[in-house]
Amino acid sequence: DEPEIPEQLSAALNSLSPSDALRELLSLSPQARLDALLALSPALAANLLAQAPNETAVEIVGHLEPDRAAEILALLQSDVQADLIGELGTSGAEAILSELEFESASEIRRLSAYDGDTAGGLMMAEVFRFREADTVGKVLRDIASADDDFERYRGQHPYITDDNGHLKGVASLRGLLTAKRSATLQSIMTVPISVSVDTRLDELEDLFDAHPFLGLPAVDDFGVLVGVVARSAVAEAVLERAETQSLKRQGLVGDELRSMPLWLRSRRRLAWLSANIVLNIIAASVISAYEATLAAVIALAVFLPMVSDMSGCSGNQAVAVTMRELSLGLVRPIDAFRVWLKEISVGVINGIALGLLIGLVAWLWKGIPALGLVIGLALALNTMLAVSIGGVVPLLLKRIGQDPAVASGPLLTTVTDMAGFFFVLSFATVMMPWLVK
Amino acid sequence: DEPEIPEQLSAALNSLSPSDALRELLSLSPQARLDALLALSPALAANLLAQAPNETAVEIVGHLEPDRAAEILALLQSDVQADLIGELGTSGAEAILSELEFESASEIRRLSAYDGDTAGGLMMAEVFRFREADTVGKVLRDIASADDDFERYRGQHPYITDDNGHLKGVASLRGLLTAKRSATLQSIMTVPISVSVDTRLDELEDLFDAHPFLGLPAVDDFGVLVGVVARSAVAEAVLERAETQSLKRQGLVGDELRSMPLWLRSRRRLAWLSANIVLNIIAASVISAYEATLAAVIALAVFLPMVSDMSGCSGNQAVAVTMRELSLGLVRPIDAFRVWLKEISVGVINGIALGLLIGLVAWLWKGIPALGLVIGLALALNTMLAVSIGGVVPLLLKRIGQDPAVASGPLLTTVTDMAGFFFVLSFATVMMPWLVK
Repeated sequence: DEPEIPEQLSAALNSLSPSDALRELLSLSPQARLDALLALSPALAANLLAQAPNETAVEIVGHLEPDRAAEILALLQSDVQADLIGELGTSGAEAILSELEFESASEIRRLSAYDGDTAGGLMMAEVFRFREADTVGKVLRDIASADDDFERYRGQHPYITDDNGHLKGVASLRGLLTAKRSATLQSIMTVPISVSVDTRLDELEDLFDAHPFLGLPAVDDFGVLVGVVARSAVAEAVLERAETQSLKRQGLVGDELRSMPLWLRSRRRLAWLSANIVLNIIAASVISAYEATLAAVIALAVFLPMVSDMSGCSGNQAVAVTMRELSLGLVRPIDAFRVWLKEISVGVINGIALGLLIGLVAWLWKGIPALGLVIGLALALNTMLAVSIGGVVPLLLKRIGQDPAVASGPLLTTVTDMAGFFFVLSFATVMMPWLVK
Repeated sequence: DEPEIPEQLSAALNSLSPSDALRELLSLSPQARLDALLALSPALAANLLAQAPNETAVEIVGHLEPDRAAEILALLQSDVQADLIGELGTSGAEAILSELEFESASEIRRLSAYDGDTAGGLMMAEVFRFREADTVGKVLRDIASADDDFERYRGQHPYITDDNGHLKGVASLRGLLTAKRSATLQSIMTVPISVSVDTRLDELEDLFDAHPFLGLPAVDDFGVLVGVVARSAVAEAVLERAETQSLKRQGLVGDELRSMPLWLRSRRRLAWLSANIVLNIIAASVISAYEATLAAVIALAVFLPMVSDMSGCSGNQAVAVTMRELSLGLVRPIDAFRVWLKEISVGVINGIALGLLIGLVAWLWKGIPALGLVIGLALALNTMLAVSIGGVVPLLLKRIGQDPAVASGPLLTTVTDMAGFFFVLSFATVMMPWLVK
């Protein structure tokens, strides 16, 4: 990377689309990235931070001087601010918050206390807010004013509260346009669809599917209007969840990007791999118990990895279908038996098909008919077992409160490895007279 | 499943939330599902179809009588109509289209011709459309009218075209509220941000990230306004893409749901598994070539699946990170070398760590120091190879125009299996004097 003069860099990044600029920024070394951010205008830096994956943004903010971080943070929307502050360590967060105005600092503190996958964690605190006694004319004047704040409301409807902040109504565009300017909001408002700060992401997704609003008002336990959940924030959270789930299946907990420090990436991946190695050793102990059989029919060793790998693939297909149906809300943990019935039907068909195929291969390759029978039968049974486990295990894990995305894969693979080795080697032990020519 | 009287069923489904109703509907047998849909009001049936995963909706519509299908279809938005018609077979689609009014049928035909991941494929044809000479008053009257069509526009801004349909401007809410009712739209309109019908999903995502609009107008090559891309349609397509990608990695091409017919599910999964079995046989041929070595040191068979499986996991982690960075737009195919440098660093650290761990296990378990050396060295080297391939292969596949989500996994696993078996068995052949006690 050639050294660049900050102004040139700033101009270069300015000329790129946000996603291109972000890619360039992330491809720099951590130090160069910091230097670049310092050279940028706070507005551009804020824009890039808002675009960046959360983990990267947190890392960058954590490395900035608190006053600079606060300057950039002040330009972000409250929901993004709260996400960043919530993921910084306490001391880092407080150093930055102390540089902000008292009011916005306490707002960020309040927002960052909510769980990220609830309305409270997703909402922004900026609300286009009026009183019942305000007139239509006041709303229209506010909309028409050149005030920048209007932009921050991102197309919210005007929400109406009583003097204690309780959400009372919402004014529709149609209501505003057809009423006299002197009419009070109380006379034209309708009862809004609102959510609680504790409303979960799934439910928010359903609500936005059902209603064409850009945002929904969020109230606390007392009915006080505390924020607005934007449609875009919900869509982003849903996407993020799908991605995180897909990464977790590979043991990548805490979304990894290659711009993160080497040791962090290495350590996180190793944590899962080391647990996996223990499971592998458990599975391998089955082979170890049958070394005598293996020594007698060495060709079995050729097919051991094949049987366990093929069953693992079949089982992972079942896991993937269940995970998708879970995320679409089409199955619940209590549907486990129904899912199993659906899976075992596929398992019987595919088990027989794959068993015949590999049995034929084993027979023709090694010239021993009984070897074909042993391998084919083992794969057929293990496929049925694998799809049964794969279809149902995510539901059982979910029922006992575990994350199915993390544990399903390793659990499945360990059981299908052990069972696959066991089927092949125990069948071979029984069939020994026909296997040894 | 007990037989239900259609009216009861209809009432029951009506009382559920859309996602619960959909789950109940999908849990019925295909025939019962059809009966249920026939018993529902067209409006409720349309609502459920719009909620259903695309494949399911297509299957259901394909089984309805054309006149009933047309009746339900007519109640859906044009983008959903086009998706369904586009995925039905030609004869089925034409049978339904012939039942619709000529104008809406030709609109659906036109929309269904666009690629699903472009603005043309995502847009709806319903546009809140005005002429330059129309007045602000006319727009306000249209908004204020009780016309149901307004609901269909889902909060669109008024778009202004010339007499030939060319997009000329958009009227902001602020503009409408502050102008005199007699003002022409031409006098208050601003130049809109528009997209071409060919604009791709990635770019649409960027645009909606950057602008707080519910929709963006789409124009054809001549600048004629042909539709509006809704924010929700883009969010849904992005999520759909992420899910499809995650399923493709397990060989589930064409999103599977358990409500689909058994034979279809079985056949689709088998297609990928059968290809996989061929790759497995190729990998196993390496073991077959070293049967003499295996016969001499039977303990090697215990560790063969372990080395190949562990490397496969390491490689899949690298694939997952690259796929995520691809979907975030943080890497491009030309970054392959940079990605490799980042991966090999992790690979060296993790390879040494895992190699030491498994080497120690092999030594202590079987009491042969040289066995530990062989297995540990093989796993270390194979881990480095696996992360190199896993990080870079998706980029190379993308560069040659292949879908990285489908091919990366099987390609990676085959190579790491072959290399793992080769490393273990060839090192063991060299070290034979120290392995045989």
